[in-house]
Amino acid sequence: MSDPSTLTRRKRHGGRAANTAKRGGDHLDQLSWRVPKNTDRPTEPLGPEGVQAIHDGAMRVLEEIGIEFLNEEALDLFRKAGATVRDTNVRMGRDFVMEMVGRAPASFTLTPRNLDRVLTMGEGHIVFGNVSSPPNYYDLDLGRKIPGTREHCANLLKLTQAFNCIHFAGGYPVEPVDVHPSVRHLDVLFDKLTLTDKVAHAYSLGAERVEDVMEMVRIAGGLTHEEFNATPRMYTNINSTSPLKHDIPMIDGCLRMIRRGQAVVVSPFTLAGAMAPVTMAGAVTLSIAEALSAIALFQWVAPGCACMIGTFTSNVDMKSGAPAFGTPENAKANLAGGQLARRYKVPYRTSACNASNAVDAQATYETMMAMFGAVMGNGNFIYHAAGWLEGGLVASFEKLIVDVEIIQHMIGLMAPIDTSVDELGVDAIGGVAPGGHFFGAEHTMARYQTAFYAPLLSDWTNSENWEIAGAKTATHRATDMWQLVLEEYQQPALDPACLESVDAYIAKRKESIGAGEP
Amino acid sequence: MSDPSTLTRRKRHGGRAANTAKRGGDHLDQLSWRVPKNTDRPTEPLGPEGVQAIHDGAMRVLEEIGIEFLNEEALDLFRKAGATVRDTNVRMGRDFVMEMVGRAPASFTLTPRNLDRVLTMGEGHIVFGNVSSPPNYYDLDLGRKIPGTREHCANLLKLTQAFNCIHFAGGYPVEPVDVHPSVRHLDVLFDKLTLTDKVAHAYSLGAERVEDVMEMVRIAGGLTHEEFNATPRMYTNINSTSPLKHDIPMIDGCLRMIRRGQAVVVSPFTLAGAMAPVTMAGAVTLSIAEALSAIALFQWVAPGCACMIGTFTSNVDMKSGAPAFGTPENAKANLAGGQLARRYKVPYRTSACNASNAVDAQATYETMMAMFGAVMGNGNFIYHAAGWLEGGLVASFEKLIVDVEIIQHMIGLMAPIDTSVDELGVDAIGGVAPGGHFFGAEHTMARYQTAFYAPLLSDWTNSENWEIAGAKTATHRATDMWQLVLEEYQQPALDPACLESVDAYIAKRKESIGAGEP
Repeated sequence: MSDPSTLTRRKRHGGRAANTAKRGGDHLDQLSWRVPKNTDRPTEPLGPEGVQAIHDGAMRVLEEIGIEFLNEEALDLFRKAGATVRDTNVRMGRDFVMEMVGRAPASFTLTPRNLDRVLTMGEGHIVFGNVSSPPNYYDLDLGRKIPGTREHCANLLKLTQAFNCIHFAGGYPVEPVDVHPSVRHLDVLFDKLTLTDKVAHAYSLGAERVEDVMEMVRIAGGLTHEEFNATPRMYTNINSTSPLKHDIPMIDGCLRMIRRGQAVVVSPFTLAGAMAPVTMAGAVTLSIAEALSAIALFQWVAPGCACMIGTFTSNVDMKSGAPAFGTPENAKANLAGGQLARRYKVPYRTSACNASNAVDAQATYETMMAMFGAVMGNGNFIYHAAGWLEGGLVASFEKLIVDVEIIQHMIGLMAPIDTSVDELGVDAIGGVAPGGHFFGAEHTMARYQTAFYAPLLSDWTNSENWEIAGAKTATHRATDMWQLVLEEYQQPALDPACLESVDAYIAKRKESIGAGEP
Repeated sequence: MSDPSTLTRRKRHGGRAANTAKRGGDHLDQLSWRVPKNTDRPTEPLGPEGVQAIHDGAMRVLEEIGIEFLNEEALDLFRKAGATVRDTNVRMGRDFVMEMVGRAPASFTLTPRNLDRVLTMGEGHIVFGNVSSPPNYYDLDLGRKIPGTREHCANLLKLTQAFNCIHFAGGYPVEPVDVHPSVRHLDVLFDKLTLTDKVAHAYSLGAERVEDVMEMVRIAGGLTHEEFNATPRMYTNINSTSPLKHDIPMIDGCLRMIRRGQAVVVSPFTLAGAMAPVTMAGAVTLSIAEALSAIALFQWVAPGCACMIGTFTSNVDMKSGAPAFGTPENAKANLAGGQLARRYKVPYRTSACNASNAVDAQATYETMMAMFGAVMGNGNFIYHAAGWLEGGLVASFEKLIVDVEIIQHMIGLMAPIDTSVDELGVDAIGGVAPGGHFFGAEHTMARYQTAFYAPLLSDWTNSENWEIAGAKTATHRATDMWQLVLEEYQQPALDPACLESVDAYIAKRKESIGAGEP
């Protein structure tokens, strides 16, 4: 905190954001780490008959139309399970599907190498993760969009670690195209396991990658195989190839994961009007059918394995065919998906995205729409909740900061109102003169420091002081904040023996892969 | 549409906003006029015991502490009603209060001069109004904050008229300080009644003003006194002088209004930590006590008169004492206020505000927080929903446009999901090849034009085209939009005889007031 260069830096930055952020890293004035519970009753755009209609529709899709499974092993497994398999088309009866889905646990935990950061999926909990998989990177200082690099990716992981309201790491927060694809998973997972101690993710993109990631997570945690296999330590998230298709590596990766006790999330990407029917009812129906078909398979293979039902249902711009996010339809799909997930008693993954080209009012109202759908849909696992921009084509540092503020607002909103006698404060009301104020009241003095949510990014100074500090918008203050948080970032502890083992594993694997060599 | 100067103007503006806005005025690509119903089950941060605790607390305030009424007539009326009046302090028993509140209608209508724009308060309806009463004006072209003028005020009224999702006009959308205070109400109401045909408002600031506004609304509507008095044609909104005080003119104005059958809204402004206890439970308790005390009086005087219970409860920044809006606490107060209003079966007014100094991400996430509180609190009458900036010190054209987009999103969110067989589209799903798309499907073609909410301001073009169009943020596109909407603004019809009568009334009143003369 007394490094002179840091102090100089602080001097350059004005406004409340800088004042807040200067306490950066572990000293950042942010919410403390906890796994929030959402006790608010969900918002439900479907009546009971609507839920039943979508369920029946999804069952008809599975029984009458069938889902394509390109993965040979999956086809064999379905045959053994008694499904009707013709070429790659699999049709399955609703009794079988519902019996299998009934095996999925209503809640489970995800345990990263830092045991203080264990997450409970289900039981009313809600956790938020960073953006996954954009090819491009943007920040306001840079001023233009460029392909992601390992450094950008690492910096996004540092921000993921620094903010307590980001509970888990998603896929690559930006694709590091400067790392050879054959070893990219090794390098990024090394960064993820050393720069963060939060729950990690594996892409289901081929046997080697999934097995490598599982091994590295195991080794970094100092776990035996038995310990690793005993409970979910990590997760994968797969999409289907909507409509109606599951590809080879995604199902393969999931099968590998569940056989070692790890968690899988099945999130069809059903864009209404493009890969899904133009109606929200149809898009949700298709999403549910595709998700349940895979979950049924996994529960057949490993009864009781940790699964989440995901939705990633939005609509396209019917003028251009471009994907839209944060629309009323997207929010309603998030809400409706939650209704179905609760019917099936399976933890629910959803997301909070936007389609804006800038970190502006549009990015914010779209994200807020999707976020409210996710929160009021009682989502348990909120993907892409911090840093997503441009329909997922860009990872944005400023957007990540704005999103952290939005997530913290949501967590504040979930806190109940205490109506105990002391909190009601009728005596305090009686103690203040009519037309007076409560600033100096004992009731106020005893509580004011923690009475209200203290924002991270919001600037509540009057306009004169705001002008003097440079008249910075929230987006420009976000630049100040991420820079300071990165400066003061503190790497989480990792047992040196574990680190050495991870290093050795990567070295061995790189030798065997031989990547990057001419 | 073929005015060459307009076409030139259009050419200067790029992007989707301009493309949309160029259809401006009545041709604007916006939601059509309707009074939405909000069928979503409300979000309730208080359990039944929490509602009871706040109710009991409010009753204790009224019984044990009492409210100051400075208005002599009110004190006389309370004496006659059997309340305990000591000097200006009025204490009233809960039985009396609840009996009086029980007289208030659960719903009523507000009928402006255009009968197509009648609004129902209650019965699940929700309507939105523009910002009221900021002293200052800002737009991005101007680039600085200046005191409001009649022209700014008139332009804000034109925007209020142009956008269908703004259902009613609030107080002055900006204070026109270039008009002498003694005749300001005459000039602004003239503008309001000629530039809009939506429900209008009177400030309760002295007998003359209230009586003038009622007369002008009556005359502009071509109504006899009997017709005017028969049903609410307009409303007033009063605050209390929190804590615990109602001033002279506000109560006087309300008494005049209810005696002529007009609607009153009682909205205490209880900032937790300043004019109210630092706890949300305490701030809501105080707000409810103050509101019910006035509503009890009005129902004693005019049983069954049209009242709304309002909340304007937020918190201060405990570091500076500055008001904050759009905080989690503000949103929760909007939700909790709705729970109490439903208990009392009185229509509910709430608001959607922010404390940002710019039309940026902060302005947007704060507004969205408050707005979700208002909508999910099942607010019926949402005040300050379009154009509010800087904690209410500024009326912003750009913010008004962003807010219109937010309101339209909310209306889109409230629309139910149709799960009829055709909408589910299982047959359509069966008709598309796995991994294919629905773009050309008959099911899509039959619906795509109206399937999704079409945004007004959002830009969903890809980043390359967005760059070519000038890389404008939503806020800059909002500038383009309000300019074009003002250009294409169409004044609503007003019977020439009514207009002449209003003119004559104003001339006579100005002569009698003699304002502006040396």
